[in-house]
Amino acid sequence: MLQAALASGAAHRKTVFEVFTRRLSGGRRYGVLAGTGRFLEGLHDFRFTSDEIDFLADRKVVNEQTLDYLRNFRFTGTIRGYAEGEIFFPHSPVLQVEATFAEACILETFILSIFNYDSAVATAASRMSVAAGTRPCLEMGSRRAHEEAAVAAARAAVITGFAGTSNLEAGRRYGLHTIGTSAHSFTLLHDSEREAFEAQLESLGKDTTLLVDTYDVEKAVRLAVELAGPELGGVRLDSGDLVAQAQYVRELLDSLGNTGTNITVTSDLDEDAIASLAAAPVNAYGVGTKLVTGSGVPTSSMVYKVVLRENSEGVMEPVAKASSGKASIGGQKSAVRRLNAEGRATAEVIGVDITAPADSNDRDLMVDLVVDGAVQPGFTGAEGVRRASERHARSLTELPVAATRLSPGDPVIPTEFVNS
Amino acid sequence: MLQAALASGAAHRKTVFEVFTRRLSGGRRYGVLAGTGRFLEGLHDFRFTSDEIDFLADRKVVNEQTLDYLRNFRFTGTIRGYAEGEIFFPHSPVLQVEATFAEACILETFILSIFNYDSAVATAASRMSVAAGTRPCLEMGSRRAHEEAAVAAARAAVITGFAGTSNLEAGRRYGLHTIGTSAHSFTLLHDSEREAFEAQLESLGKDTTLLVDTYDVEKAVRLAVELAGPELGGVRLDSGDLVAQAQYVRELLDSLGNTGTNITVTSDLDEDAIASLAAAPVNAYGVGTKLVTGSGVPTSSMVYKVVLRENSEGVMEPVAKASSGKASIGGQKSAVRRLNAEGRATAEVIGVDITAPADSNDRDLMVDLVVDGAVQPGFTGAEGVRRASERHARSLTELPVAATRLSPGDPVIPTEFVNS
Repeated sequence: MLQAALASGAAHRKTVFEVFTRRLSGGRRYGVLAGTGRFLEGLHDFRFTSDEIDFLADRKVVNEQTLDYLRNFRFTGTIRGYAEGEIFFPHSPVLQVEATFAEACILETFILSIFNYDSAVATAASRMSVAAGTRPCLEMGSRRAHEEAAVAAARAAVITGFAGTSNLEAGRRYGLHTIGTSAHSFTLLHDSEREAFEAQLESLGKDTTLLVDTYDVEKAVRLAVELAGPELGGVRLDSGDLVAQAQYVRELLDSLGNTGTNITVTSDLDEDAIASLAAAPVNAYGVGTKLVTGSGVPTSSMVYKVVLRENSEGVMEPVAKASSGKASIGGQKSAVRRLNAEGRATAEVIGVDITAPADSNDRDLMVDLVVDGAVQPGFTGAEGVRRASERHARSLTELPVAATRLSPGDPVIPTEFVNS
Repeated sequence: MLQAALASGAAHRKTVFEVFTRRLSGGRRYGVLAGTGRFLEGLHDFRFTSDEIDFLADRKVVNEQTLDYLRNFRFTGTIRGYAEGEIFFPHSPVLQVEATFAEACILETFILSIFNYDSAVATAASRMSVAAGTRPCLEMGSRRAHEEAAVAAARAAVITGFAGTSNLEAGRRYGLHTIGTSAHSFTLLHDSEREAFEAQLESLGKDTTLLVDTYDVEKAVRLAVELAGPELGGVRLDSGDLVAQAQYVRELLDSLGNTGTNITVTSDLDEDAIASLAAAPVNAYGVGTKLVTGSGVPTSSMVYKVVLRENSEGVMEPVAKASSGKASIGGQKSAVRRLNAEGRATAEVIGVDITAPADSNDRDLMVDLVVDGAVQPGFTGAEGVRRASERHARSLTELPVAATRLSPGDPVIPTEFVNS
């Protein structure tokens, strides 16, 4: 595609590409944008190495003109979009790339890979955080996702309200709070559960969480209290009927005088399971598989479409495809979240080829991320995660209360288009 | 966990950990193991960098004894397992790690991340390849998965029968056949469809595939034939009712004399959609989203459990947890695929603490992957992918024909345990 466009000369035409979804997969009430920080970090170093160029040359994937273009590639365009952690709806222009066709086209897969995965996890994680209310959710899903996706998932989870992650690499890269846990293998490694608990308490102190379902939950809880006394930090349950187990263990702990010992539950939790544990005496949720796989929606179905391009006379023109069921809307978009007098969101307003009209309550959603190739400050690294997390919490409070419904349904606010 | 075990001394006990699934998620009839090559490539370089150690030290994640252990970490154990591309069933011991607890414990997340993701994709891809029969499947899903997961997915797809991938990085790393495609944006970039088609044909020759559903399919097909003549390689359809569209376009191409022009279809294909296109005049399938997300089963639910460990007297003992619904089976496993006189598989036979009994037809499934820390040759890089692909094709032909059923159900052969 690039080779043909370089040969025809069209590769150097100015274009505007937009990232959006046509619908919210899985009947989600809202989507959460995540991945911006990772995208900008990657864009900063986006070059083709000599190994990569040699591969394309040796295998004759592209011609010499294209190899030359790739050897010198640097992104020099401008990118706007929703800030990371922001909530989005169908057709929200979450990212907008202004660049030559060649530059915009090269970034397509990189952009979609990041935003599709990270936003799928963030959307699921936000629902889980909402379902958990004031109780902390802990991210423990690394083992159920590709090893690098796991790092991105931990990051997306913390942006959307998770209190910490067991992924130490994510902690290192993004300054996230990290947590640890002991597995059944640790108990089984020792000659007895007593020896295992003693070893853990000796090394980590009494404010630790002991896993109590390797053999017999009642015996393990009694043993844990015998060894650690009333200062025992917590116990973890990872199997069985968690509501009944939590109730039983809470009563047992209380009867032994351990009213301050927490109960953490794990075991294939999703937002529905978390909601169903709301009345159970649980202090924290450890979430794994369902988090890193987007809780049934493993990708956000975001697409990257050209909406405006220069014609042969140098004039910018809106363009759109007419494909059956997949038609796109030509023209550069703008977006505001319409807020009523109480500051509650009532619509996502998308301006097509005009600035979306806004009154003083409304909130402009587009921010500058890259200007003429320069990544703008504040979106990357630990600072980016911290700001995205704050932004997500604020945006969520603006939504109507129906946003917290877990059942599939329509987006909680409608998307409205305003044309010139 | 590691810190407590180092402090108690138990970290240096010999252990055997096994990777297996308790069930085949999604009612799959068989699973496909993938990821071995990636795991062994990663294991070869598995060290902790000074940046990583500094992070753990600065954040006081672990104590000095543990930091020392990690600074000097090298894996020195022995690993056996099913070869990559092999088919597996519930409780198949697809990987078996013999090492000290500390060494085995450190690899847990790395192992599970790789095998859970790669096997989920491979299992879905195998079903798609089976559904496609002799027609080629092409991997085009990178944009719907994390950017590194996308590379792993392309690799897993080729192992299980896909003819090529659009992921050039996967092609570079693993010697895969790569393919390209033009998007709607390429057509929209030009002032007219005619100019776009001319540019593509000029640059790539007549043996290229033109995307014909940007505006009007009939007009686009007529234009493509007008410009390229009877030598036009192919056309791609990416929207609408693909069965009806393919039928219509085939008749149109034939009526214009282009009986040799292929039809490639794309648009959210999964194994069921591919099967439903079996009678349609389609020449190739481009598969994206559903492939890289495991077609509804985005992770393989593999677990990593200690099954044997040294006790305080230095004697190896089987161990198992009793957790409700998640009980494990203690003791080191072996595995053969029982084959009848016609060479057809009839059972997965798992020996528990003994060598699984086998007659001359049966096939031993465990191979040496790492011996005393040394990665064995033949499993990594392009050679590993090529051998895994051949192995998968052979193993698939051994299964009963019911293996090709796409509907959810029981595994196509039962798992039988043989105890000493």
